[in-house]
Amino acid sequence: MDVEALVFDVFGTVVDWRGGVAREAARLLGPGVDAAAFADAWRDRYQPSMDRVRSGERPWVVLDDLHRESLPGALAAVGAGGVPDDVADELVLAWHRLDPWPDAVPGLTRLRRSFVLAPLSNGGVRLLVDLARRAGLPWDLVLGAEVAGRYKPDPEVYDSAPRLLALPPSSVCMVAAHLDDLVAARERGLRTAYVHRPDEFGGREVPPASDPAADLSVASIEELATALGC
Amino acid sequence: MDVEALVFDVFGTVVDWRGGVAREAARLLGPGVDAAAFADAWRDRYQPSMDRVRSGERPWVVLDDLHRESLPGALAAVGAGGVPDDVADELVLAWHRLDPWPDAVPGLTRLRRSFVLAPLSNGGVRLLVDLARRAGLPWDLVLGAEVAGRYKPDPEVYDSAPRLLALPPSSVCMVAAHLDDLVAARERGLRTAYVHRPDEFGGREVPPASDPAADLSVASIEELATALGC
Repeated sequence: MDVEALVFDVFGTVVDWRGGVAREAARLLGPGVDAAAFADAWRDRYQPSMDRVRSGERPWVVLDDLHRESLPGALAAVGAGGVPDDVADELVLAWHRLDPWPDAVPGLTRLRRSFVLAPLSNGGVRLLVDLARRAGLPWDLVLGAEVAGRYKPDPEVYDSAPRLLALPPSSVCMVAAHLDDLVAARERGLRTAYVHRPDEFGGREVPPASDPAADLSVASIEELATALGC
Repeated sequence: MDVEALVFDVFGTVVDWRGGVAREAARLLGPGVDAAAFADAWRDRYQPSMDRVRSGERPWVVLDDLHRESLPGALAAVGAGGVPDDVADELVLAWHRLDPWPDAVPGLTRLRRSFVLAPLSNGGVRLLVDLARRAGLPWDLVLGAEVAGRYKPDPEVYDSAPRLLALPPSSVCMVAAHLDDLVAARERGLRTAYVHRPDEFGGREVPPASDPAADLSVASIEELATALGC
């Protein structure tokens, strides 16, 4: 695969959103709330909240705002009541404090020697900067939904990566643990690499071991580095 | 100065454009061309070329395209003839291969421990990524004209930094060696730091030693790190 840049989905592909949100929820909501179920309930509201932006029903808002708006429903879904504004703010920031999967930093560090690396996430720019600074993710730059003003899988997000990197789409590879992300990337001419993350959903959903339509399927970002000769 | 992010002008403030362009010109054009005079002649066309975009006379184009268009005039100004397309392409890439001032990498490396760091330059995203990867500039993300779709000193460029970093403008400091850049940043509510770069223009213009209107005036990025307690 002859590419110059790798762009990464982040939630689930590079970082463990479920474990990180559950950790912060346990800290902020106490033992009376099932923290993992709360993380799942919040994530269940993720796609529907973006759909209202994708459809044009509402103008662009950054993911933090969508998380804040969907928080009461997620709390109610696990039988928790409302929380004060300062706790709600802290819970939204849980998404800025997610731990990377163990292979992410070593894999990205190897890949960066040979490839331009960027997140291409639905998370906002500040969220992605916070994640990277906390975890040591060695991005060259931050790309994604907020830079494009649209949420994946809208085509403008995928188009923004080769445009801003001054590369043909076929010189950019989208790396993700989600088949629909890779389908949309291929439709815009990007190369694709699938990362199998069996633990992303804590067993609620079991992703396939590989994506036959992708250029590569790997079990970790370190395996991706090896496959690309890094 | 209580800020969370520092955004940097790049050409002249972080890297030595004159020395770098002259080095590549000497390599590509040979000894018959005064390479430093050529660098100056090309830079003389920099502001006028952006003015046509700023005024709306033409739609957005990235700086590489402006450099390419102004190249024949810069060559003619030093008595050089036209060059083949491949040489012209390489000359445009000279602006992607500029060396940092000696204090830039050590100063930025110290600053990054405490502050989010980004370029806020009129150079394109790919140019800024190439400069950073070549020189080891430790940016957290790449901001600037291409992300904003406008050239400095248009206000949208300065506004884009606090917006994408989710910070109030007063929590962002613009660092530059050019007074007009800092004037425009202050008009948008950013804090400002002036870096004295006496060698930027090879003696053709002598910048002032300090900017009394800035929050800080320093002689290097290492001095900036010291002034900010890093």
